[in-house]
Amino acid sequence: MSDKTTIGVGMVGYAFMGRVHSQAWRSVGAFFDLPLTPRMAVLAGRSKERTEAAAAQMGWDAVETDWRELVKRDDVQIVDICTPGDSHAEIAIAALEAGKHVICEKPLANTVAEAEAMVRAAATASGKSMVAFNYRRVPAVALARRFVEEGRLGEIRHVRAQYLQDWIVDPEFPLVWRLQKDKAGAGALGDIGSHIVDAAEFITGQHVAGVSGLTETFIKERPLAGESAGLGASRTEQTGEVTVDDAALFIGRMSGGALASFEATRFATGRKNAMRIEINGQLGSLAFDFEAMNELWLSSGGGGFERILVTEPDHPYVGAWWPPGHGLGYEHTFTHEIKDFLEALATGTDPSPTFADGLRVQRVLEAVERSAADGSRYTNVED
Amino acid sequence: MSDKTTIGVGMVGYAFMGRVHSQAWRSVGAFFDLPLTPRMAVLAGRSKERTEAAAAQMGWDAVETDWRELVKRDDVQIVDICTPGDSHAEIAIAALEAGKHVICEKPLANTVAEAEAMVRAAATASGKSMVAFNYRRVPAVALARRFVEEGRLGEIRHVRAQYLQDWIVDPEFPLVWRLQKDKAGAGALGDIGSHIVDAAEFITGQHVAGVSGLTETFIKERPLAGESAGLGASRTEQTGEVTVDDAALFIGRMSGGALASFEATRFATGRKNAMRIEINGQLGSLAFDFEAMNELWLSSGGGGFERILVTEPDHPYVGAWWPPGHGLGYEHTFTHEIKDFLEALATGTDPSPTFADGLRVQRVLEAVERSAADGSRYTNVED
Amino acid sequence: MSDKTTIGVGMVGYAFMGRVHSQAWRSVGAFFDLPLTPRMAVLAGRSKERTEAAAAQMGWDAVETDWRELVKRDDVQIVDICTPGDSHAEIAIAALEAGKHVICEKPLANTVAEAEAMVRAAATASGKSMVAFNYRRVPAVALARRFVEEGRLGEIRHVRAQYLQDWIVDPEFPLVWRLQKDKAGAGALGDIGSHIVDAAEFITGQHVAGVSGLTETFIKERPLAGESAGLGASRTEQTGEVTVDDAALFIGRMSGGALASFEATRFATGRKNAMRIEINGQLGSLAFDFEAMNELWLSSGGGGFERILVTEPDHPYVGAWWPPGHGLGYEHTFTHEIKDFLEALATGTDPSPTFADGLRVQRVLEAVERSAADGSRYTNVED
Amino acid sequence: MSDKTTIGVGMVGYAFMGRVHSQAWRSVGAFFDLPLTPRMAVLAGRSKERTEAAAAQMGWDAVETDWRELVKRDDVQIVDICTPGDSHAEIAIAALEAGKHVICEKPLANTVAEAEAMVRAAATASGKSMVAFNYRRVPAVALARRFVEEGRLGEIRHVRAQYLQDWIVDPEFPLVWRLQKDKAGAGALGDIGSHIVDAAEFITGQHVAGVSGLTETFIKERPLAGESAGLGASRTEQTGEVTVDDAALFIGRMSGGALASFEATRFATGRKNAMRIEINGQLGSLAFDFEAMNELWLSSGGGGFERILVTEPDHPYVGAWWPPGHGLGYEHTFTHEIKDFLEALATGTDPSPTFADGLRVQRVLEAVERSAADGSRYTNVED
Repeated sequence: MSDKTTIGVGMVGYAFMGRVHSQAWRSVGAFFDLPLTPRMAVLAGRSKERTEAAAAQMGWDAVETDWRELVKRDDVQIVDICTPGDSHAEIAIAALEAGKHVICEKPLANTVAEAEAMVRAAATASGKSMVAFNYRRVPAVALARRFVEEGRLGEIRHVRAQYLQDWIVDPEFPLVWRLQKDKAGAGALGDIGSHIVDAAEFITGQHVAGVSGLTETFIKERPLAGESAGLGASRTEQTGEVTVDDAALFIGRMSGGALASFEATRFATGRKNAMRIEINGQLGSLAFDFEAMNELWLSSGGGGFERILVTEPDHPYVGAWWPPGHGLGYEHTFTHEIKDFLEALATGTDPSPTFADGLRVQRVLEAVERSAADGSRYTNVED
Repeated sequence: MSDKTTIGVGMVGYAFMGRVHSQAWRSVGAFFDLPLTPRMAVLAGRSKERTEAAAAQMGWDAVETDWRELVKRDDVQIVDICTPGDSHAEIAIAALEAGKHVICEKPLANTVAEAEAMVRAAATASGKSMVAFNYRRVPAVALARRFVEEGRLGEIRHVRAQYLQDWIVDPEFPLVWRLQKDKAGAGALGDIGSHIVDAAEFITGQHVAGVSGLTETFIKERPLAGESAGLGASRTEQTGEVTVDDAALFIGRMSGGALASFEATRFATGRKNAMRIEINGQLGSLAFDFEAMNELWLSSGGGGFERILVTEPDHPYVGAWWPPGHGLGYEHTFTHEIKDFLEALATGTDPSPTFADGLRVQRVLEAVERSAADGSRYTNVED
Repeated sequence: MSDKTTIGVGMVGYAFMGRVHSQAWRSVGAFFDLPLTPRMAVLAGRSKERTEAAAAQMGWDAVETDWRELVKRDDVQIVDICTPGDSHAEIAIAALEAGKHVICEKPLANTVAEAEAMVRAAATASGKSMVAFNYRRVPAVALARRFVEEGRLGEIRHVRAQYLQDWIVDPEFPLVWRLQKDKAGAGALGDIGSHIVDAAEFITGQHVAGVSGLTETFIKERPLAGESAGLGASRTEQTGEVTVDDAALFIGRMSGGALASFEATRFATGRKNAMRIEINGQLGSLAFDFEAMNELWLSSGGGGFERILVTEPDHPYVGAWWPPGHGLGYEHTFTHEIKDFLEALATGTDPSPTFADGLRVQRVLEAVERSAADGSRYTNVED
Repeated sequence: MSDKTTIGVGMVGYAFMGRVHSQAWRSVGAFFDLPLTPRMAVLAGRSKERTEAAAAQMGWDAVETDWRELVKRDDVQIVDICTPGDSHAEIAIAALEAGKHVICEKPLANTVAEAEAMVRAAATASGKSMVAFNYRRVPAVALARRFVEEGRLGEIRHVRAQYLQDWIVDPEFPLVWRLQKDKAGAGALGDIGSHIVDAAEFITGQHVAGVSGLTETFIKERPLAGESAGLGASRTEQTGEVTVDDAALFIGRMSGGALASFEATRFATGRKNAMRIEINGQLGSLAFDFEAMNELWLSSGGGGFERILVTEPDHPYVGAWWPPGHGLGYEHTFTHEIKDFLEALATGTDPSPTFADGLRVQRVLEAVERSAADGSRYTNVED
């Protein structure tokens, strides 16, 4: 391994996403025969003390308290952006301008305008860029894509996608940053709705062409969060307004003629991370639920659904891991993402999904919001 | 049993629905302690020969070749309408005017105007009337209703209902009456969409207040059917236009504030009769799929989903049947319906769902069609 | 139908089994094109009042209070034995000697000696005979048999069968007849263990060649039952000894070389009627659980398991019923059994399973008991 | 983290088990707040070239080509044994004698005699020792143990455990070391049967007291393996004898009175790694299948089974990882094992399962073999 080129990584943010990305950077080289060896060079965060503790625990060699410093460093060739959506555009554009490669967490940005600026920056940059829709790298989702590409479903008729969580069902759950429009851009629609739009487009190879949407905020006022505003935040006695959607439903048409139904909600009591997608085609159907992430259900020729345990050596990404039946966990969707990213860097191709893919998802979300504001009227994504 | 009042039944139509209703009339008295003993008196159908054969096989004592004669007979007190939707209004109104009780298959009628006329007739009639949304009488669905009534779900946030079939996925499947607007009124929307609207309203105790809809006919031309136009029809070399929807999607709001998503399609390859409904409330959730009709899934307090095998003596309708774990089949949704109908007759109460309930469903379907024609714009059901 | 020969049925016993058989006799002609039309002629039971009430509710034309009278009647050509196992031999032999056809509930008898006498009587009788292992007629089980016959599983390696119930977990559940050796012959072993032995033999086409068994009675003393000793019996303050097994486990070898594992218990809390069977072959595998009786799981070529909804027209028995996806209930395992029985009578062939099949199951059960008594030593069934 | 004591690890073997252990050593510190920081110091393997390549890929700082050298090194305090069973005793005893702590892969040894020697060595050693029954550290299995400890199941009546794989169904699969008695000690019985015995004992808190067993080798001759004899070995044209069992079935009694049924097989076509266990108690039941490793099914009070997604912060080990619904993979059963091992070292307590636990499992396996050789006669484990 010593004769391979090492490439330095700088990561911005060390909360939930930062922890997952770190595990992926740490693991990827032990399982995949990589063309480039990543070095976990620098971690950036605002608090020196916390960033240092995080770097020590997660294995980063150095820290910065200003991401602008990280972007400048010579030992950083890849900038991995794990911050909330309101800073994506600024960091990504600066990193691209500094000649770095960029992996940016999803959704790409909080607004279409920001996303467009990022796409423009990516177009002229020397570095490569990628938006981290990690669910594409669930082996079962990648296998679903393969089945569609191989024509095993025939012409696609229906997409039925839901992302169901329940972590804010309790009205006393505090007003964390994900419930504030200025930080998060949108609520369930942006955070998890973006994932199912991307997954639907990825699996079918079609785009969402138009939508009719409804959004709702069930709990309009919540206790303010304590010191940390992350997922495990405490709450205070003051309250504040929830400025994002709690749930978003939309129906629409795919570019290839399929009908599609989407739902993103944080109020589906008992569903923890049910990112579910069903595809019905002329010849067959697929069903997936992330709560059972190592399984893909396939119906061929109108027969029953086969539960495929996606742990066979010829399944996407799986050959690098364990024997059949020994499943993978959530974290390795990121490991696979990074593996593909490094391979794209080595071959000079564009890693996928691109910022342009991220922008297109952003436009779908914006079309949903416009539709919801306009009496659910059918709204073309490109308008 | 000999000292109980016998009540004569006349049934119109002997195809799929007629066969199921016959099994229910035949079975109900053996399992439930009924206040009235039904007698399978008369079967009406157009062809004398076929009607006689059907009556002999299914156990009807006499036949008529004109439903108008059946409606007049003194040995008929209940008229059970199992014909396509285009004749529901005429038969039901005539039967009610003749002083008979009426059970009418769903959807109540092919148009809102017809359904309104039926409701008016029912309002002034001496006989009782009921629309046969049989899925209310699946024990698991009735148990779902009970859980909501008991407050176990708390405030309802989401309804997610799909009725998925795949019997016309093949473009060579012939143009049976269910694919013709003049006979069937609508396609998947009316035939199976009506069931999930009724089930959602029944379980939640809320009405569908407004909708945004999309409909689609994927296969616009099909071979004409041979002699019979029923589900098993053969096909000819000529083709004709499909004049109903193949699939309908709609999202909307329930009267109590829940968001709702509905989908009815006959193009979900591999799904045979997947009448699925999920309800998410503040305190708990429910999930049901008719393909596993003896199971109801309940999540309480945000925990996992419990698979309740709805075969316990204290579950709705179940005590009359077998020991725990010995499931019931599709047909007994009708047996339960008839049992409830006879009990309502005996006590002089209105059997449920009423024609007014059927009209309300009809208005939802019409609102979906208006919305679909008007750019999916949100459309109030009552407008 | 009027030109078909009618055949009179006399049934002995009207408890659980009698109720199910009645529903089958009542339904069979409406769905299957039968060569003989059964007439529900006579019901026999000890109490005149109760037997008359049962006959009225279940639709039997006449009653007898002594089964010996029923067996003599000219209007009875088929004797259907639904009594506890201690009277099977006497009734069946008398009926066969009277020239009747006989359907006898399982297990065939309470002892091998009785079963042998029945087989001898059957061998010389003019009437046909059948033991009612109804689970063979679950469409999914019959489909499993078809798959094995077609060679889709290749050489069979493993049989894994369990019949799990929980209805006597409560130590206060009373000492009903099924817990008394003199009435029931055995406990879980005979009552439900017999079903899985028969199902395993039926599906694989192999016999159980030898076994090593363990049996256990967890609760050795129970309250005596009140007036009725049926499943819903009340209890008294006196107690009595449980003289049958609560659970039986046995492993063994099939005649074709497969290994087999069996378990029958009434102490599997939460399992209501989990008659489960898995078969592993060189080329594929099957799995079935009666709690989801309309589903069969098939693995081919080492791939995942396909959930086959056994409701397609070309599945065994299913074409006579409803469209795909509309499942059947427990009762129609008996309807199918009677249909096959009547067809065998019409063609003069032996209905299956024969009394000899029932005897073979009995010998397996006895081998289990002998093994259990002899330190679980491997015991050949034929010894 | 820098102020914590670092502890050096030396691992012997770098095949399947070595790769998993490496990932665990690499990951554990990033997620758990450990009292000791492990350093991946030395990897031992026979081939210098291959060991160096493995060390480079998996992140070990140095290599040895003789495990005896590794055991002597001052920078190694923990010896992690990932070799086939035939070398466990020698390495473990040497390491303990050298004052090292030892983690040894399962089964503890190939014979009871070896296991006894290891237990003796452990008893007098200054170092701590542990046998790596990793399935105890599946969060769902640890939660099952917790439920039993809390009394939620009441008195245990039944244990039903199977470990089903299918990787040698093909008769052309080569004769790898796991199919050779001198290397592997036993076949399915030792490799996977040991896991379910340990898991059953762990969850119930009872020991297997006695067994009746059957074993079988379905394919008695196989092609010799090519150069590597690991799981992915190629095959040659020569054949050799399979000297271990392909499948083992045994029934028995637990020390607390429960009945138990076990099955270990590599011939369950379509089952990839189905380590399944069901427990039935007086008050409730549990069911688990490793193919869905993040799920535990619980029945309470005789009601249905609740699917618990074992990803909540208060579930065993889970709080250290991701938000609810984001499942873990196979590898972290080892991560948890190492975390517990390091905590035991820091507190001076004995890590569990001990070598004595491993010996007890070994005795169960030997009792199965003795029973199988003696006509499946019931055999006490302690005899």
